[in-house]
Amino acid sequence: MEKHGFALTPLTADKLTRLQRDPQYKKIEQADIDYFRSVLPESSILEASKCAEETILGYVSDWYNLYRGSSSVVLLPCNTEQVQSILKYCNDQHIAVVPQSGNTSASGGSVPVFDEIVVSTKMMEEIRSFDSLSGALVCDAGCNLEKLDKYLADYGYQIPLDLPAKHLCRIGGNASTNAGGIRQMRFGNLHGSIMGLEVVLPDGTVLDNLSTMKKDNTGYHLKNLFIGSEGTLGYITAVSIQAARIRPAVNVLMLAFPSYEHVVQAFDYCKKHLSETISAFEVLDQDSIRCIESVGFQIPKGSAFPIGDHHNFYVVMETAGSIEEDETKRVNAFLKELLEQEIAIDGAIASTPEKRESFWSWRTKLPPAIVQTGPHSIHFDISMPIPKLYQVVHDTRAWMEKQGMIGRDVKAVYGYGHVGDGNLHLTIPALIDSESLREEIDEFVYTWLTQYSGSVSAEHGIGLMKAPYLTYTKSVTMVQQMQRIKNMFDPNGILNPYKLFPKDNELWEGQSVRKRVRAANCGC
Amino acid sequence: MEKHGFALTPLTADKLTRLQRDPQYKKIEQADIDYFRSVLPESSILEASKCAEETILGYVSDWYNLYRGSSSVVLLPCNTEQVQSILKYCNDQHIAVVPQSGNTSASGGSVPVFDEIVVSTKMMEEIRSFDSLSGALVCDAGCNLEKLDKYLADYGYQIPLDLPAKHLCRIGGNASTNAGGIRQMRFGNLHGSIMGLEVVLPDGTVLDNLSTMKKDNTGYHLKNLFIGSEGTLGYITAVSIQAARIRPAVNVLMLAFPSYEHVVQAFDYCKKHLSETISAFEVLDQDSIRCIESVGFQIPKGSAFPIGDHHNFYVVMETAGSIEEDETKRVNAFLKELLEQEIAIDGAIASTPEKRESFWSWRTKLPPAIVQTGPHSIHFDISMPIPKLYQVVHDTRAWMEKQGMIGRDVKAVYGYGHVGDGNLHLTIPALIDSESLREEIDEFVYTWLTQYSGSVSAEHGIGLMKAPYLTYTKSVTMVQQMQRIKNMFDPNGILNPYKLFPKDNELWEGQSVRKRVRAANCGC
Repeated sequence: MEKHGFALTPLTADKLTRLQRDPQYKKIEQADIDYFRSVLPESSILEASKCAEETILGYVSDWYNLYRGSSSVVLLPCNTEQVQSILKYCNDQHIAVVPQSGNTSASGGSVPVFDEIVVSTKMMEEIRSFDSLSGALVCDAGCNLEKLDKYLADYGYQIPLDLPAKHLCRIGGNASTNAGGIRQMRFGNLHGSIMGLEVVLPDGTVLDNLSTMKKDNTGYHLKNLFIGSEGTLGYITAVSIQAARIRPAVNVLMLAFPSYEHVVQAFDYCKKHLSETISAFEVLDQDSIRCIESVGFQIPKGSAFPIGDHHNFYVVMETAGSIEEDETKRVNAFLKELLEQEIAIDGAIASTPEKRESFWSWRTKLPPAIVQTGPHSIHFDISMPIPKLYQVVHDTRAWMEKQGMIGRDVKAVYGYGHVGDGNLHLTIPALIDSESLREEIDEFVYTWLTQYSGSVSAEHGIGLMKAPYLTYTKSVTMVQQMQRIKNMFDPNGILNPYKLFPKDNELWEGQSVRKRVRAANCGC
Repeated sequence: MEKHGFALTPLTADKLTRLQRDPQYKKIEQADIDYFRSVLPESSILEASKCAEETILGYVSDWYNLYRGSSSVVLLPCNTEQVQSILKYCNDQHIAVVPQSGNTSASGGSVPVFDEIVVSTKMMEEIRSFDSLSGALVCDAGCNLEKLDKYLADYGYQIPLDLPAKHLCRIGGNASTNAGGIRQMRFGNLHGSIMGLEVVLPDGTVLDNLSTMKKDNTGYHLKNLFIGSEGTLGYITAVSIQAARIRPAVNVLMLAFPSYEHVVQAFDYCKKHLSETISAFEVLDQDSIRCIESVGFQIPKGSAFPIGDHHNFYVVMETAGSIEEDETKRVNAFLKELLEQEIAIDGAIASTPEKRESFWSWRTKLPPAIVQTGPHSIHFDISMPIPKLYQVVHDTRAWMEKQGMIGRDVKAVYGYGHVGDGNLHLTIPALIDSESLREEIDEFVYTWLTQYSGSVSAEHGIGLMKAPYLTYTKSVTMVQQMQRIKNMFDPNGILNPYKLFPKDNELWEGQSVRKRVRAANCGC
């Protein structure tokens, strides 16, 4: 079997030897399948032993081809009641469960590590209600983001979240991971725009918190605990979200800069003069552009790179306003000013919807392009103060050169991301598949980050990948409080085990990975 | 003693006979004062027996003159360490504590019910850091909102929260109550804009969660549990918040409408055509205008009512953009269109900063005007679907007329509020001070609300006032989960007791107040 043209990643159980299957979890037996059959229709039960391998693979392996579990069954409940029945049974029987939506997690958060069963939202796709005056949308957790956007467009609205995986991801997973994306600087985060959730707890209790009120200060805002909890506290079955009005006058610009400092100047200028309409400000370095060019993607018609492609930095920028004439004038004046002040070296404004899509594709096609360049990409999703954002690329590259890693272990070091959110995707295509290499690089980058009080995960979450590094960002005290909450909602620990939390021997304040590993080895 | 020119409200203990002092809480003794003296400077300890009555009153009675406690001591710690010492001691000794910031709660949430001690943020007023590129502000909980705004203005920023009590309230209290205000439609809610909190738990543990990252998906977003928890889970000592860029081109309009339906039409039109710059859309009915006129407020120079004052509804609307010329053009076109289409009957755009302030004062002076009209105002802070927003005023008035209450028990029924947030402040100036009258009206309004899945508190929180009505909005299941969280963080229940949660005998799903009272009386 292959994925994206490369060999399938080994089983996570074989790859990550630091992890052991927790024997408290029951192994699935025929009696369990029989129970699921008693509460679900036949089409909602996929048994690995009876399905095509690629069918099951779509649920047990991740999109990035980094992790693979070996579940014997995947369940696809059709409604909240069925989720209740499944969770209650699994809780009683100590069966470990991985909640899954679009399975686009970039941290290994949405696939099983060992033989946990997958419970997918895929068959829950109903829109429950939409209020075209207030913009309140209530829908099932399995609704696809792109489809929701198309539904809302008829009413003049859009989903307040946009990310390259829009065609694959589902709103339940977006809520569960507090997904960020490319237009967060316009829409804000999901803690602000999600008004309510329906959540099933492991014991089958339904938290019916589907408020459609923008303001609802009636006790603890429990929904916010589940937003970003990565499926470890409850199973999100429905979402109430504040849709955003479409602003028809959209402009997309491609800008070129000699240095990252010039990018920051342009960002500041833009926030000062276009603060009400700026909706995205995405930076790419030259290697990011090269990466897309190298895989020869079928980019849309007219997608030849719109400006000279030899500059150090590029920005794809978008504004969205109500009145086309005003917006065009403002954006033209902005570009003129940037060029005259020699902040930008080159720049173009997309003149047609096709060109807009084409400009954007240089950013949105980057994640699939990275996957196409090789099977061993090491990617980071880090946040830090904006002026420091690109320094991590320079410093990591310099460190790797000194270590003789470039050309031997890795191909290159490059970066792209969301300037406005201080969020960089540092990307390192590796030449070898080595966990110790990954750990060494992780340690360098995350230790670097702690200098600037940065975060080890900006928008991708912790998942499986970053669990050992949680205390690089959060104090042990904070993590302990999180564990208490986890124990309160999920006392049997059936929901998404091995994810998010460091193991007890990794829960050391301010310790580097290497020190931890050493300590674990010597038993101290 | 008087407050706002009226007799001081009776002690809450005498007024709300449904409440009994919980004997588990220790009464303050000299030894306790001695302890506080050992950890705080002398200026941080106000003993009721040694202070002027009005000094203590500022802490133990609320701004609305509805509730009054009888604390023997008020503490004003200067830093986080002092808060730790106080809470740890109170937790060990079972001393009940009311966290307090600006003491502007409209639900009785910030004052003691019996003899709880008040721990005020007033002496914690430092700005810890500000990043003028990203807009991340970190400051002590006691910082006054208006002062913060002035500080940020020098950098071209503003606090993403605005409310009439801005000159009095403090950011810790705003966070703790998830304050909403008059510009939430621009800034979104505090769950979206607060990036981090520093919180002291009852056992003295500090949760150091002062992230300045816009994106930080590293485990549960614990800060959101404390935002809106009304001081019942922990004591907020510092806040990290995303400031908003000032948009210099501000326009303020006063519009007049024949009916609420016309107001809704104007709102929809405005959201379609001015979605990127609309920052406030506040409705007032004619009686609200009359209320301000009746108290003869010292409104700013030039504050004669700007348009004919005999219309049924008024809207104070604000837009904020970057470029004055564009904004002026857009707003003029908007007003012209509203008048031509006969959506609005009359309208004016403020032409100077003074006029803008004057237009606004007809909205912001309303809460103090209401307090001036009499001591027994019954005010609601409810949210519901926008088209229903004003119907509650009509229906409540009709019900009261039928009951013969108008003229006998109450003077009038009127409403004003935030159209964009579906948030109305229904206001009923009463002629008598009667708890049973209040309960009767509460029951009518909150029962009415349940038809439309509205919320019993939009932005003021539950506090003491609405604790019996929490299950009109939230299910018993939800409230039980909240109670588990409360018990986890505050096992001795020392933080803000008697607030937020209904008593056990009030925790009945879907039951009306009267039924509950009857049930409580008959012991079933």
